[in-house]
Amino acid sequence: MHNSTGLSSGLMVEAPSCSFASDNTAGVAPEVLDAMAGANTGPAIAYGADPHTGAFDAHIERLFGSGAKGLLTWGGTGANIVGLSTLVRPYQAIVCAESAHINVDECGGVERFTGSKLIDVPTIDGKLTPAHIEAQLHVLGDVHHPQPGAISISQLTEYGTLYSVAEIQALSDCAKAAGLRVHMDGARIANAAVALDVPVRAFTADAGVDVLSFGGTKNGLAYGEAVVFFDQSLVSEAEFNRKQAGQLPSKMRFLAAQFNALLDDDLWLRNGAQANRAAQRLVAGAEKIPGVEITQRPAANAVFARLPRPVVRQLQAWSYFYVWAPGQPDANGEIFDEVRWLPSFMTTDLDVDLFLAGVAEAMAAH
Amino acid sequence: MHNSTGLSSGLMVEAPSCSFASDNTAGVAPEVLDAMAGANTGPAIAYGADPHTGAFDAHIERLFGSGAKGLLTWGGTGANIVGLSTLVRPYQAIVCAESAHINVDECGGVERFTGSKLIDVPTIDGKLTPAHIEAQLHVLGDVHHPQPGAISISQLTEYGTLYSVAEIQALSDCAKAAGLRVHMDGARIANAAVALDVPVRAFTADAGVDVLSFGGTKNGLAYGEAVVFFDQSLVSEAEFNRKQAGQLPSKMRFLAAQFNALLDDDLWLRNGAQANRAAQRLVAGAEKIPGVEITQRPAANAVFARLPRPVVRQLQAWSYFYVWAPGQPDANGEIFDEVRWLPSFMTTDLDVDLFLAGVAEAMAAH
Amino acid sequence: MHNSTGLSSGLMVEAPSCSFASDNTAGVAPEVLDAMAGANTGPAIAYGADPHTGAFDAHIERLFGSGAKGLLTWGGTGANIVGLSTLVRPYQAIVCAESAHINVDECGGVERFTGSKLIDVPTIDGKLTPAHIEAQLHVLGDVHHPQPGAISISQLTEYGTLYSVAEIQALSDCAKAAGLRVHMDGARIANAAVALDVPVRAFTADAGVDVLSFGGTKNGLAYGEAVVFFDQSLVSEAEFNRKQAGQLPSKMRFLAAQFNALLDDDLWLRNGAQANRAAQRLVAGAEKIPGVEITQRPAANAVFARLPRPVVRQLQAWSYFYVWAPGQPDANGEIFDEVRWLPSFMTTDLDVDLFLAGVAEAMAAH
Amino acid sequence: MHNSTGLSSGLMVEAPSCSFASDNTAGVAPEVLDAMAGANTGPAIAYGADPHTGAFDAHIERLFGSGAKGLLTWGGTGANIVGLSTLVRPYQAIVCAESAHINVDECGGVERFTGSKLIDVPTIDGKLTPAHIEAQLHVLGDVHHPQPGAISISQLTEYGTLYSVAEIQALSDCAKAAGLRVHMDGARIANAAVALDVPVRAFTADAGVDVLSFGGTKNGLAYGEAVVFFDQSLVSEAEFNRKQAGQLPSKMRFLAAQFNALLDDDLWLRNGAQANRAAQRLVAGAEKIPGVEITQRPAANAVFARLPRPVVRQLQAWSYFYVWAPGQPDANGEIFDEVRWLPSFMTTDLDVDLFLAGVAEAMAAH
Repeated sequence: MHNSTGLSSGLMVEAPSCSFASDNTAGVAPEVLDAMAGANTGPAIAYGADPHTGAFDAHIERLFGSGAKGLLTWGGTGANIVGLSTLVRPYQAIVCAESAHINVDECGGVERFTGSKLIDVPTIDGKLTPAHIEAQLHVLGDVHHPQPGAISISQLTEYGTLYSVAEIQALSDCAKAAGLRVHMDGARIANAAVALDVPVRAFTADAGVDVLSFGGTKNGLAYGEAVVFFDQSLVSEAEFNRKQAGQLPSKMRFLAAQFNALLDDDLWLRNGAQANRAAQRLVAGAEKIPGVEITQRPAANAVFARLPRPVVRQLQAWSYFYVWAPGQPDANGEIFDEVRWLPSFMTTDLDVDLFLAGVAEAMAAH
Repeated sequence: MHNSTGLSSGLMVEAPSCSFASDNTAGVAPEVLDAMAGANTGPAIAYGADPHTGAFDAHIERLFGSGAKGLLTWGGTGANIVGLSTLVRPYQAIVCAESAHINVDECGGVERFTGSKLIDVPTIDGKLTPAHIEAQLHVLGDVHHPQPGAISISQLTEYGTLYSVAEIQALSDCAKAAGLRVHMDGARIANAAVALDVPVRAFTADAGVDVLSFGGTKNGLAYGEAVVFFDQSLVSEAEFNRKQAGQLPSKMRFLAAQFNALLDDDLWLRNGAQANRAAQRLVAGAEKIPGVEITQRPAANAVFARLPRPVVRQLQAWSYFYVWAPGQPDANGEIFDEVRWLPSFMTTDLDVDLFLAGVAEAMAAH
Repeated sequence: MHNSTGLSSGLMVEAPSCSFASDNTAGVAPEVLDAMAGANTGPAIAYGADPHTGAFDAHIERLFGSGAKGLLTWGGTGANIVGLSTLVRPYQAIVCAESAHINVDECGGVERFTGSKLIDVPTIDGKLTPAHIEAQLHVLGDVHHPQPGAISISQLTEYGTLYSVAEIQALSDCAKAAGLRVHMDGARIANAAVALDVPVRAFTADAGVDVLSFGGTKNGLAYGEAVVFFDQSLVSEAEFNRKQAGQLPSKMRFLAAQFNALLDDDLWLRNGAQANRAAQRLVAGAEKIPGVEITQRPAANAVFARLPRPVVRQLQAWSYFYVWAPGQPDANGEIFDEVRWLPSFMTTDLDVDLFLAGVAEAMAAH
Repeated sequence: MHNSTGLSSGLMVEAPSCSFASDNTAGVAPEVLDAMAGANTGPAIAYGADPHTGAFDAHIERLFGSGAKGLLTWGGTGANIVGLSTLVRPYQAIVCAESAHINVDECGGVERFTGSKLIDVPTIDGKLTPAHIEAQLHVLGDVHHPQPGAISISQLTEYGTLYSVAEIQALSDCAKAAGLRVHMDGARIANAAVALDVPVRAFTADAGVDVLSFGGTKNGLAYGEAVVFFDQSLVSEAEFNRKQAGQLPSKMRFLAAQFNALLDDDLWLRNGAQANRAAQRLVAGAEKIPGVEITQRPAANAVFARLPRPVVRQLQAWSYFYVWAPGQPDANGEIFDEVRWLPSFMTTDLDVDLFLAGVAEAMAAH
C-alpha cells in the first residue's frame, strides 16, 4: 500500500493484505460494486427521483420508524454540515468533545458553513456527559454569549469508545430539558450497533437523537453517507441546506444503490461485525506479546496500544498505521508511542494473524 | 424512466431508451465502471495519496501543461465553490451571466460559502462580453460597493452556446487588465472541446482562464468533477478550501480511477462527440417536422425548440424532457412552449430517430 | 466643506452654508446633542438596561402599537443586516430593486452576514411591484434555486420616489400570500412620513411590513438607527443577531437619548418636513432657471436635475454635490449630466436661495 | 443606577456616585462631549473625508510611527471582527485564551463573520504563552485541520492581568516564526499603557503586533474604537472589511473628534491613570477589611475579591457589581463568591472611600 514509510522493514513475516491504518483504507464491498453496476440500466432523472432512492427511503423507515427521512450526501463532513446547519442558527453554539471529528478533522467546515461556534470540552475518553452540557447552560438567554443550541456526539467516538443506550438517553434528556437539539456523528455506526447488540433505532431515534450522520464509506461504500432526520419538521430546511452545501448528488441512483446493498439483508451489520471481530482477535493476540501494552480495549473495532518507537517505525515500514499519541522519553531515554490499529470489514483472520506475527517478530528483535 | 408525467401519451411509436431531459439522466460509461472495479484491489491510503490520483495528476499536466493542478471534488456545485472561494475575498463580487448555473441552480451555495455577491448581468445567449465587465468597473476602489474580483463564464453556457477561443481571450484580457480573475464552469467542457475542435488547453489555460471546473458527471462518470488551477500560487489555499467545503473525497482512488478512464485514450472527447452528433441529427430531423420551430441551433449538444403546449405535454408523458421557457397565449389563444432536448454520450442514432418519430406523430395528430 | 473639487469656482454669489450633496453631510440637531449631554449623569448599566432605552421602547410602542419592539443599532448597514438576517435563512433569497442600498451600497454586507442571495430586479424608479415578486415565485419548493424568503423595499427609495400606502399593502399582500416576509429600509422614513402625511404606522406595521430600519442618522442624529420588529416572535432571535453582528452599543443610553430627542414632540417629523420643504423651494426656483431640466420632481427631499457638464463642474467647485448619472455627448457634442441635490433637516430658505443664485449665475455665464 | 437588585440594602453609608460594576457604566468624558459639539459646525462629507478624521490619522502616526493606519469603528466587537477578518482566511484558526472576549463575549461574531475557528486554550490568568502557540503548530499543512493563522491576545486581559513588553515580543516571535499573525484586543489599552509605563508603541507595533483594537469606549468616549494596522499591506483589504461588516460610520467626524479629544494632550493616559489609581486605593482599603480576600492584585484597574455571599447580595443592592466566579459551600456550608470591581476614569477617591465604607459596614454586620 502506498504511504508506507518507504524504508525496508527488515521483517521476515509477510505483510497482511489489509491495512490496519484506518477503515477508510479498505476498498468497496463486492455487493456494493455489483449494485452500482446493476443501477446502470437506462436513464434516470437526477437528484433522487429514481426507484433506487425510493428503496433507500423505505430502508430508513424500516430501520428508524415511519417519519424518519434520510438524505444522502457525498461524505461525512458534508453529512455533518447538513445536519448541524439544520439544527442551529449562527448565534447558537454546538457543544462537542474536544476530540470530535467536527472539531479537529473537518478544517473548520462546520464553523464556515453554519457561522456557529463549536464549544469543545475536554474529555477523558471522547464521550460527553450531562455535566459537560450543564456547565454550558448558564449563558442561555444572555446575548453576549453564543447560545448552546445543540450537542454533537460521536458513536463510536474518535477514541473508539461507545455510549450505552442509557448514556445517550441521559444526554438527550439533559439537552432537551434546556432546549438543545441532539446530533450524532455515526461515521462508524455499524460498529457501534454491533457492539451494543440492539437495533440501531434504540440508541438513536428512540434515545432522543434528532439527527444522525449514518456512515457508509467506512463500512464498504465507494462514497456516501446519509443524514437521517427523526423530526420531520426539519426535513424541508435540510433539503435546501444539502443543495446549498454542494452535497446533493446528481446521479443519485448510484449512491442509493450502494446504500441499499449495505442495508439489504443487514450487510452493514455483518460488515461491522467483521471489523469488530478482527479487533477482538487482534487485542487477544497482542496482549500476549511481551512488551506490548494495550491502552484501550476495543469497544468495537479500534485498538490502541503502546510500543517502543523503534518498533513502531519498523512496523510502519512493513504495514503502515498511525501514531495516535507520541510518547516522551522515559527515565531510560526510551520512547513508547501510542498507536491506533483500525481493522475494517475487509480484515480477515489471516490479516490479523500476519499482523500479530509481524508485531511479535519486531518486539522480539527489539 | 421515472418522472414521466404519469399520463398515458397515446403515442404509437416506441419511446427511446435514452432520455433527452438532461445529460445527467444518463448512466455511467462502461469503461468508468470497469475502472472503479479495477481500483478495488487491496487497501489504499485515503484522501489522494494513492497511485490512481497520481495518474490523474499526470493527465492534468499532459492536458494543461506543467504546473496545472487538478483537485478532484464530488460534484459541480462543490467544484465551483472551491474554485471561486479561492479567487475572491468576501467583499469582492463575481460577475456572471444571469443564466449562470452558479447564479440560478446552486441554491445560493456560492454566496453562502464565499460570502461574496454575484453580480449577474442579463445576456441574450448566456455569454458575457467585455462590455459586461467594463460596465462594472467604475466601482473599483469605492468601499461602498462590492468589488468585482472575478468573472465566471460557462463553457458551454446554460443556453447551449459556445465561446470561441478569441472571445475567451478577449474576456480574460479585459478582466486581467482590471485585476479580476477568470473562472470557467466547464460542466460540459467535453462538448465544448469537441465543438471548438482545438486542444482544451487552447480555450482555458492558454486563453487566460485561472480556474476551471472540469466536468465529469455529465460525460460518463458516476460522480466527480475536477477543479483545475493554472496558477500554482492558488493551489495551497484551494486544498484547504476543498476540505473545509466538504469536497475532499475519502476513498479518492475510486474517483481518480473514473476520471482516468475518461482521460485515457481521449474517451472524454469521444463521449462528448457522441452527444454533439446526436444533437445535430436531432436538429436536422426536427426542422423537417412541420410546426416545430428550432429556436437555437446546437453549438454542441443542446437543442432548443418551440412546440404547441398540448404536444409538449403529450411528448413529456411519452419520454420526459423539460420546458425551458413557457410561452404566452398567441392571438389564437394557442400557447407554444420552448423546450430543451439534451442528448448525452449514451444517446444512439436509434434513440434520436425514435424520438423524432414521436415528435412527428404528436405534431401530425395536433 | 471638505471634498469640494479644490478648484476656484469663479462664481460671485456666496456659497450656502449647508451642503446639497447628501443629507448625511449635515451635522447633529441641537436638541440631539443636548440630549446626549443630558444623559451624561452618573453611571448606567451598559447594553440597554437604562432608563433612556426604556423611554425609547415606550416611544416605539406609541408609534407602532403595543408589541412593536425597536432594537437600536449603530448604523444603517447594521440595521439592515440585523433585520434581514432575522427574516431569512441562508438558502433563502431577498428580492429587492437593483438600485437598493442593500444591493449596491453596503459592500455585500447582507450576503456576507446572512449567506443569502439578493435577487435584484431592474426598476424604472426604484420601486418594486407585485409583478416583480410574482416573477420570482416559480422556483419555490425547488431545491436547486435560492428560495425567495423576503422582499426588501426602500421608503424613500434611492431614487427619491415614494411608495403609497396602497402600494405597500399590495406588495405585502403579494409577498405574504407566497410566504415571503417584508422588510423596509427606512433610512429616510421621516421624509416619507411627512410626504405621505399619514401616521408612520399606516405605511409600515399596518401595511404588512414585518421589519423596519428606522433611520436616525440622516435626520439629525450623530449616529444610530433602529430596527423595529412588528412580529414579536422575531425579537428574541434578532437580539442575538444584533450582538453577533457587532451592532449592540455598549453605552446604549447615549444612543437612546438621541433617538428620544428626535421622537419627543415629533422633532423627527419637523426635521423631515424641513428637508422636504427645502426640496420644494429648490425645485420651484430651479425650474425657472433657463437650461435647467428637472428630471424628477421631489416626492420628498431628493431633487434630480440635468445641467451642462461645465456648469456642473463649476458648481461642484463652489458647493459640492454628486453626479447621479453621467450623460453622453449630444448631437452638438455637449454633455448634460444628471445630478442629485439632497437638502437636509438643516437646510434653510437662505441656503436654498443662495444655491439657486449660484446655479442661475453659472447657467447665465454658460 | 439601574440594574441594582431592587432590594433595600439596609446599609447606612451613602452609595458612591460611580459604579464599580464595569468601566462601561461610566459616562462620557466632558472633553469628549465638548469635542462632539465642536465638530457640529456646518456640513462635512461623510465616511471620513473630513478634517477631524485627518487629524485622527495624524495622531495614529504620531503614536505608532509613520505607516500606521487607524480605522475607526463603532464598537469593540466590530473592531475585533474587522481586524481578525483581515488577518485570516476562513480555513485558518485564531488561537486565543479561553477567557478572551472574542471567545466568550461576542456571541460568536468572529466565527460568523470570518468563518474561522477559534482555538481557545485554558489559561491560569488569561494570558497566552509561546507554549500555547507551539502546541497548536503540529497541524500546519494538514488539510484536515483548521490552520492556525493568527493569535489574539488581550491587553489588559479579561482577568485584569497584563503582558509585559518582553512577553508580547516572545509571543510575536513565536507566532511569526510559524507564519501566524498577531492581533491585540486593546479594549483597555490605556490602563495597560499606564501600568506598563512605556509608550504604547513599545508593546504593540514595536513588539510584533500586526493589528490592534485600540479601545475608546471604556476610556471616556460615547462610542468608538479604532483598528490600527501596523502593516500597510493590510489596510486596503481592511477598509472593505470594515464597510462590509457594517462598521463604517457615516458622520465620521463625530467619532474622530471624540478620539482626538482623547489623544490630544494625552487625556487617554490621564483617564487610564485615574482608573488604575482608584483600583490601587480600593485594594489597599479592602485588604484591611477583615474577611475580605483579595484574589488578584490589580495590574491596572481590575480588582478581584472574595466575600461571603450574603455580603455580596447586600452590597449589590446598594451599589451594583458583578459576581465573577460563584463559590461552592465550604465545610461550614458558607459560600464565598469571587467578585470583580472595575473602577473607571470617572471614579474619584470619594467614590472609592464610600465603597470601602459600605463593604466594611456589610462585613462587620455579617
